[in-house]
Amino acid sequence: MSKKITVGDYLLLRLKEMGVRHVFGVPGDYNLGFLDQIVNMEGLEWIGNCNELNAAYAADGYARVNGIAALVTTFGVGELSAINGIAGSYAEQVPVVKITGTPSTKVMKKGALVHHTLGDGDFTHFMNMFKEVTVAQTMLTEENAAEEIDRVLRECWLQKRPVHINIPADISYKEIDAPQTSLALPEPVSDPTQLNKFVQKAAEELNKANSPFILADYEVNRYRLYDQLRTFVEASGYPIASFSMGKGVIDETHPQFIGVHTGQLSEDFLKQCIQESDCFILIGVKLTDSITGGFRFIHDLEKTNIIEIHPSYARINNEVFQAVSMREALEQLTEHVQHRTWNLNPHPAGNGSPFIPSSESITQERFWQRLASFFKPGDVLLAEQGTSFFAASTVKLPEKTTFVGQPLWGSIGYTLPALLGTQLADQNRRNILVIGDGSFQLTAQELSTILLHDLKPIIFLINNDGYTVERMIHGAEQRYNDINRWNYRRIPDVLDLNGNSISFQIKTEEELEEVLSKAEKANKLVFIEVHMGRLDSPALLRELGKLFAEQNKYC
Amino acid sequence: MSKKITVGDYLLLRLKEMGVRHVFGVPGDYNLGFLDQIVNMEGLEWIGNCNELNAAYAADGYARVNGIAALVTTFGVGELSAINGIAGSYAEQVPVVKITGTPSTKVMKKGALVHHTLGDGDFTHFMNMFKEVTVAQTMLTEENAAEEIDRVLRECWLQKRPVHINIPADISYKEIDAPQTSLALPEPVSDPTQLNKFVQKAAEELNKANSPFILADYEVNRYRLYDQLRTFVEASGYPIASFSMGKGVIDETHPQFIGVHTGQLSEDFLKQCIQESDCFILIGVKLTDSITGGFRFIHDLEKTNIIEIHPSYARINNEVFQAVSMREALEQLTEHVQHRTWNLNPHPAGNGSPFIPSSESITQERFWQRLASFFKPGDVLLAEQGTSFFAASTVKLPEKTTFVGQPLWGSIGYTLPALLGTQLADQNRRNILVIGDGSFQLTAQELSTILLHDLKPIIFLINNDGYTVERMIHGAEQRYNDINRWNYRRIPDVLDLNGNSISFQIKTEEELEEVLSKAEKANKLVFIEVHMGRLDSPALLRELGKLFAEQNKYC
Repeated sequence: MSKKITVGDYLLLRLKEMGVRHVFGVPGDYNLGFLDQIVNMEGLEWIGNCNELNAAYAADGYARVNGIAALVTTFGVGELSAINGIAGSYAEQVPVVKITGTPSTKVMKKGALVHHTLGDGDFTHFMNMFKEVTVAQTMLTEENAAEEIDRVLRECWLQKRPVHINIPADISYKEIDAPQTSLALPEPVSDPTQLNKFVQKAAEELNKANSPFILADYEVNRYRLYDQLRTFVEASGYPIASFSMGKGVIDETHPQFIGVHTGQLSEDFLKQCIQESDCFILIGVKLTDSITGGFRFIHDLEKTNIIEIHPSYARINNEVFQAVSMREALEQLTEHVQHRTWNLNPHPAGNGSPFIPSSESITQERFWQRLASFFKPGDVLLAEQGTSFFAASTVKLPEKTTFVGQPLWGSIGYTLPALLGTQLADQNRRNILVIGDGSFQLTAQELSTILLHDLKPIIFLINNDGYTVERMIHGAEQRYNDINRWNYRRIPDVLDLNGNSISFQIKTEEELEEVLSKAEKANKLVFIEVHMGRLDSPALLRELGKLFAEQNKYC
Repeated sequence: MSKKITVGDYLLLRLKEMGVRHVFGVPGDYNLGFLDQIVNMEGLEWIGNCNELNAAYAADGYARVNGIAALVTTFGVGELSAINGIAGSYAEQVPVVKITGTPSTKVMKKGALVHHTLGDGDFTHFMNMFKEVTVAQTMLTEENAAEEIDRVLRECWLQKRPVHINIPADISYKEIDAPQTSLALPEPVSDPTQLNKFVQKAAEELNKANSPFILADYEVNRYRLYDQLRTFVEASGYPIASFSMGKGVIDETHPQFIGVHTGQLSEDFLKQCIQESDCFILIGVKLTDSITGGFRFIHDLEKTNIIEIHPSYARINNEVFQAVSMREALEQLTEHVQHRTWNLNPHPAGNGSPFIPSSESITQERFWQRLASFFKPGDVLLAEQGTSFFAASTVKLPEKTTFVGQPLWGSIGYTLPALLGTQLADQNRRNILVIGDGSFQLTAQELSTILLHDLKPIIFLINNDGYTVERMIHGAEQRYNDINRWNYRRIPDVLDLNGNSISFQIKTEEELEEVLSKAEKANKLVFIEVHMGRLDSPALLRELGKLFAEQNKYC
């Protein structure tokens, strides 16, 4: 059964089916016809961004909270501006549908020398570039549109990675016969034999181990297998740690949760547990340098039994089990694992002693100590890949908190536009962003879009006079790590003509205390500039900086 | 003869030889060692940008005035943010050396899962992407560095297009034997037989034509063959028009210059000359849609004899002459062409009647009418690819003016960071930027860098409440062409803590008059917000918008 529908509308209906309610992007003459279709489509809202890179970051943030996102740019100029954001979504496995409005089919066929091209009549350059950072690509025609849209969207959903859909300017309004059945959204499936083999062997290893230990990370978040993970954790009774990339994969208040693993830089109690374990089960973990303390972890792992579960395969030491889905592996292991009562001493509770504000200048350590008790269940916390991420990753968060950072791709400036996306994805959740001045300057204008839509996050701008994250690695006093000093708290004077925000500038602990209580009651966007020392850094970043410098071997 | 030198210093010395005095970019941990070498190198200044796309735009602007530019970013995140700017330099033939600091050789060889990668151990993704938009690429090693640096820089110089140099973090400080001879900078050379054949035949066609006509464009600017062009023009006595992309290729006050060709949208006098001509000589012209009025020109061309001269080849109608350099072709044609006195009536002089300011709101037409007499010889005029470019392209400029726009690539937001580059390239020249509010928002933060370095351009921000250039093409009243309203004149309150600027907001002709006289005396950066109607557009853009919409065939 099929019905007549335009190509553009068909694509939009499929996106809606997948859960897209906002489409990000920037207009350009090759996408204007398609933008008409977006603004006319009930249940979809067009969110115009200040630039395309910001749009890609916003889409990435949206997808992390919403499950999927879409953005539209024009050909060449627009899509290339966005490509760093798409690469980040690829690296960190975030499902984003990148739609490019291209010149018309006829113009491309002729190889005409039109604007937004390299002037060589070749329209494949940018598609080739996108192939490096997307898992499926298509150029829509009247003939292939229905099939190709479905194919590419399914890959996005299955692999949780970006895809690239090119829609020529003349194709959006072509009427096609499109299926009326809903889009069957695929998920990784197991080969029953492989699954069974893996589960038997893994259960055997786990059940005979003295002290098995669970390490879980971001792949669990991406496939939303929180429930399956928690059920397995509780059935097994094993202790669990997460990595920073998937922080929040299990509620950090869970009695079996003992902290965030940061390699040799982990807290003593966590390190002790790791050292005493003879069998690790890694669930959704990819061991990269930023989350392992510069690979210092891996040496421990090499001495023990390792079971790995990934979204679509598993591994026991050197044996790989293809076609094993994480969902089924967790469900079945839950059945086969013998529960044991964890016999280590409980870890120190909470985030340390109560915070008594002084009139002293605020430090990184004290700032995060105070913030720890400011967070509430259900918050979305975004931490920029500078001092903020490394401090935030070791703060214990309340249940149902979503933590958003970008430790693998690590593109500074990401979190401010990402905040637009996370907050739009669910306006009932309180969003809190902590970002440094250096990072803020890269994408500062996107605050304008957040204000325009009257969103109400709380933004802490850590003003520490430059790129402190780089100072910790190399060139602490070099002028290339300096930036121009801005009067940050006056930014709303420029961007917020509707009075949708309040802003503060603070320097002491007492001022922080005061401003937090105002923020709780504001019902507006709250922008707080916090002054800190330029070499004040979370301990984790100080240590990691040295390891990164060593890895780079500058001289 | 050779001497010991580090790889990083060798690269920097070669860049200096080519004329680089400022290096743009953003620090990242894979380039910090190399940045030390930049700040320690006498005669080079590090210019830190707010983000990498802006750095690429700044480098492009710098190269257009200075002849060559360089920018440095980190791997992955940094270089992909810059890639749209590099693609623009490729499209418009601007020689920019893109340097990427990569992870160390050892890390890449191991395929380690380090930050700023896709997490797949593959370090070739981004190099592959850059191959689409650069003319030469290299990954430096201790062994190949001297040879590869020279090879790649020569290609940049020869082809006037970007190149990509990857320098691993551990390689910058490796000592190598490097040649002490200077870098022989190549230029296109002719095959004497081909050159002679072309010149004989072209001279014959020109000398027998009734009314030959010269059309010159940007390739002449890129190879700086202004003198050769002017000498040929004067020897021939033919009338000459330029296109907007190479506007200023010949002084617009030259008695043989009759205007900027914009296809069917050209001024009547120019159209008449074109229609009466039976032989065109196109010097450094590529006929793209933005500069030809949507290809409406080409129909005229098809009926006549066409001689084309490009940097390294030539053509007479359908016959191509490979290995003919523009320089030699012009020099020899100058010898062989019979001078004739141009017998058409002289074109109307100047930019119309004197401007008498009224208390009326300022319009596009009146604004540009007034600005025409504000420009001075030697100015650099940057016009953003919106209303500004299309208006500016038809204003008659004084001699020795450099005009900077981006009609082929057309990436909005380009000109503000480009202004940083053009002004740094020559601080003795007055730089004037005209940019719309929509475009400004894409790259607004780079004003910070311009202010930090105490540069003193004049910036006109045309506040017409959104993307007027898109409104002229499609969706004049659609909300996707709206943007958030900013209080632009208060931007210096945020970005300019050193008081390096003055700002104004104007709405009427009288206010414009007043502010222009203040700008002349300011000796500071002058930022002028000019309010205009959202549908007020230069006639050229109104017409072109319709043609672009037709080309796109939205529905």
